[in-house]
Amino acid sequence: MIPIVSIVGKSDSGKTTLIEKLVPELTRRGFRVATVKHDTHGFEIDKEGKDSWRHRKAGSYTTVISSSRKLAVIRSMDHDASLGEIRDRFIQDVDIIIAEGYKKDKEPKVEVFRKEVHQEPLCIREDHLVALVSNQHFELGVPCLELDDSTGLADIIEKNFLREKLPVQVCLRVDGKQIPLKPFIDEFIKNSVKGMIASLKGCDNPTKIEITIN
Amino acid sequence: MIPIVSIVGKSDSGKTTLIEKLVPELTRRGFRVATVKHDTHGFEIDKEGKDSWRHRKAGSYTTVISSSRKLAVIRSMDHDASLGEIRDRFIQDVDIIIAEGYKKDKEPKVEVFRKEVHQEPLCIREDHLVALVSNQHFELGVPCLELDDSTGLADIIEKNFLREKLPVQVCLRVDGKQIPLKPFIDEFIKNSVKGMIASLKGCDNPTKIEITIN
Repeated sequence: MIPIVSIVGKSDSGKTTLIEKLVPELTRRGFRVATVKHDTHGFEIDKEGKDSWRHRKAGSYTTVISSSRKLAVIRSMDHDASLGEIRDRFIQDVDIIIAEGYKKDKEPKVEVFRKEVHQEPLCIREDHLVALVSNQHFELGVPCLELDDSTGLADIIEKNFLREKLPVQVCLRVDGKQIPLKPFIDEFIKNSVKGMIASLKGCDNPTKIEITIN
Repeated sequence: MIPIVSIVGKSDSGKTTLIEKLVPELTRRGFRVATVKHDTHGFEIDKEGKDSWRHRKAGSYTTVISSSRKLAVIRSMDHDASLGEIRDRFIQDVDIIIAEGYKKDKEPKVEVFRKEVHQEPLCIREDHLVALVSNQHFELGVPCLELDDSTGLADIIEKNFLREKLPVQVCLRVDGKQIPLKPFIDEFIKNSVKGMIASLKGCDNPTKIEITIN
């Protein structure tokens, strides 16, 4: 599963600015990064008058714009997706997801705090806090880094979420809903599926197997 | 598998205009439509200065903007994806995909032709042509519809691609590549997986099963 770290903080604390420093630092270390921005107001993204904008205006549920270097998908939603759902359904081919916002989500968090802007951090009592990035020191039981210390923050993220390879995992979704699996069932499905496809052409030493039955 | 129909035609023949009429007609009939626009020049989509734009500028491989009504994914690509790949990897929850362009792809095609703009259609010898939409009649062995006949075109698309429910199908991907399955193997995997999960809680009468092993 791709690890998720959410950058949280009160309004104007510097979340995007921190992400702007963190993403290049992680990329420089060889990791592919996805970012997720939580939008609470409703966003407009495509440019008025463009063909894809006209498709969407005509009522398309999903619009894809595809080129050889970039692909964009704009789709309708009927709920606010959690970070876990966003990871499972919409993100592929990256090593880590850095989210902005999502302070109520249960994923690991890094808070940004600037004493000029607010009186106290958001996450004083927060189980999922991994680090505080701040120009004022707080004893919160987690590392407290300087505002510009993106190297230190990348060290913490790398050590906690990127160094250890995750064990083989099975994700089973039935009608779009993830089914929790006990270790025995996880092992059983994994070995059965691997056995099932072992003799098929093109299936030697698979690192990822996906089966979809419609 | 979600059916794909591509609207093709020479430059300025009216492809987007046709899609603008076709999408609402299909939607009115109760179908969810995705559209795909092929971009050959390289597109800019996000608005300069927005947080998500700043994420991408900082080097994120994938950027997601998520709200309760809409979700956008902008991701890097290293090749021009075929319509089949776009369907398999990036489109969910729709009944049909209407693409614009992709004249070299092997999916079914509808050509738009206007005699004021060009001398002859693109698809005179085209195995995958389903209909011609034109203000000049051609004998191409497929229906020839008037330019504004989106109802007639929706009838053809509905009859050919949307009326028949597709049989149960297995899609197996190993390391991102789809593995072709013979009918016997398809049946074997389908029944084995259905049997495997039959006694799990929440798996009664599944209509879609997805297993991912990483």
